Amino acid sequence: MLKNKKITILGLGVLGGSYAKGLHKAGVAVSAIDIDEDALQTALSNGWITEGDTDPAMIKDSDIVISCLYPHAFVKWIAENKQYFKKGALLTDVTGVKRAVMERVNAALPDGVEYIACHPMAGRESRGLAYADENCFTNANFIIVPEHNSQYALDTAYEIAHILGFGNIVELTPEEHDRMVGFLSQLTHVIAVSLMNVADNTDLADYTGDSFRDLTRIANINELLWPELFVLNKDYLMKEIDAFTEEMQVFKKLIADEDYAAMQEKLRISTRRRAYFNKKKG
Amino acid sequence: MLKNKKITILGLGVLGGSYAKGLHKAGVAVSAIDIDEDALQTALSNGWITEGDTDPAMIKDSDIVISCLYPHAFVKWIAENKQYFKKGALLTDVTGVKRAVMERVNAALPDGVEYIACHPMAGRESRGLAYADENCFTNANFIIVPEHNSQYALDTAYEIAHILGFGNIVELTPEEHDRMVGFLSQLTHVIAVSLMNVADNTDLADYTGDSFRDLTRIANINELLWPELFVLNKDYLMKEIDAFTEEMQVFKKLIADEDYAAMQEKLRISTRRRAYFNKKKG
Repeated sequence: MLKNKKITILGLGVLGGSYAKGLHKAGVAVSAIDIDEDALQTALSNGWITEGDTDPAMIKDSDIVISCLYPHAFVKWIAENKQYFKKGALLTDVTGVKRAVMERVNAALPDGVEYIACHPMAGRESRGLAYADENCFTNANFIIVPEHNSQYALDTAYEIAHILGFGNIVELTPEEHDRMVGFLSQLTHVIAVSLMNVADNTDLADYTGDSFRDLTRIANINELLWPELFVLNKDYLMKEIDAFTEEMQVFKKLIADEDYAAMQEKLRISTRRRAYFNKKKG
Repeated sequence: MLKNKKITILGLGVLGGSYAKGLHKAGVAVSAIDIDEDALQTALSNGWITEGDTDPAMIKDSDIVISCLYPHAFVKWIAENKQYFKKGALLTDVTGVKRAVMERVNAALPDGVEYIACHPMAGRESRGLAYADENCFTNANFIIVPEHNSQYALDTAYEIAHILGFGNIVELTPEEHDRMVGFLSQLTHVIAVSLMNVADNTDLADYTGDSFRDLTRIANINELLWPELFVLNKDYLMKEIDAFTEEMQVFKKLIADEDYAAMQEKLRISTRRRAYFNKKKG
């Protein structure tokens, strides 16, 4: 039961803040560590956290530590502050890439501290506590990425996801997770960004319809977070970029050759596959 | 004034049907030609058209003919039936590519028949009269592509757009139009289709968030219409595909090199440009 545990959130950004607000709303008390005193003060005065500190040593009596830091900051924080974890503490996180982060965090953690990797797939373009919104988890996917974890760690991950109201809770291996986000999330962000960067076509904004706006909505992107995610998953992501640009070139050849039958077949397949993704909408 | 003219729509598909319903609603009587007797009967019994026929000779007393045919069918229909136009008749259309279609239609038309090219940019994934909806024009762009046109032809194009409720009416040259649709519309459809075709990733549908759904919505596509549009604009479109895939490869290189500063700059530019497209939303 989370309610009997001492829980500390690392990082009160948009996601850490949303966790704090969601847990608070469910009657689960949490404390928080952040380098920003103002963020701590805001969370304290709203009652979202019961304690706040800039000192990492604050985790020393925490049963559960939830890192809501960016990937590089998370790995660095653990390396620098691992000595403060108490024996039997459970560490979890929200990081959007898994293999590289899990390898580094597990290598740094002392014996007696267990890490269970989690990825709440809740969209967020804006940064900072001011945009924290515990409702962003409704109907979203919560991915648990277990690796030699205890039943207690697994149960805790599920309990966090349930309390925060996630719609779909799934277990994946680190490889399955990283392949999935490489295609569904990272490739799509590189596409949207590249479409905006290929040329300054802002003079065309007057003629823009919903299609273009839908396709580039995620080109509004956190430029500090995403390059870290791309680099930490670069083997999968670079393969996806190559496969995708190759497919675009194959289609270009069909246009050049005026091969109507082959284009029609491609469009029939894309329509059929896309319908499957529609059906799955939660 | 449209109300004093005899108007005939060619083709009662989703767009021709939407034109008929919209004009009828505004008190403008129209007749229609279609090869599908059932479509004519449906439109007649609903009062959307006052006359319907499968015989092209029906246009012989029409003041205004509005082609809502696919590009190839439009060009072929004009070549085969140009003798039925009366002297002084005005031809307009809805075709999504302009240079190639205007050249072919103008070459085929007899003296005394004027063609004014128009492109109502109203999204439509579904086909057929059953999906016709005169409300799809609200807030949409109506592009007029004049070339040696009379004031009467221009005034008529504006009147049609106003009556149907378009939000934004713009004049472009054939080249400006085709560059614009090549980037905003055709490239984006090739991207969405290629993203669905690159691999069968339907096993990932469970994990899909709004980003992926937004990016691939237009992968649900009319496989008969779009290959024609792609081919008739292939010079511009193939250049856009090359520029876009090259930009994706440039970004891949930044990931490979772990060049955080350069990636951050790309993401800042894409966020800034995307904001401009947001501001312009009607």
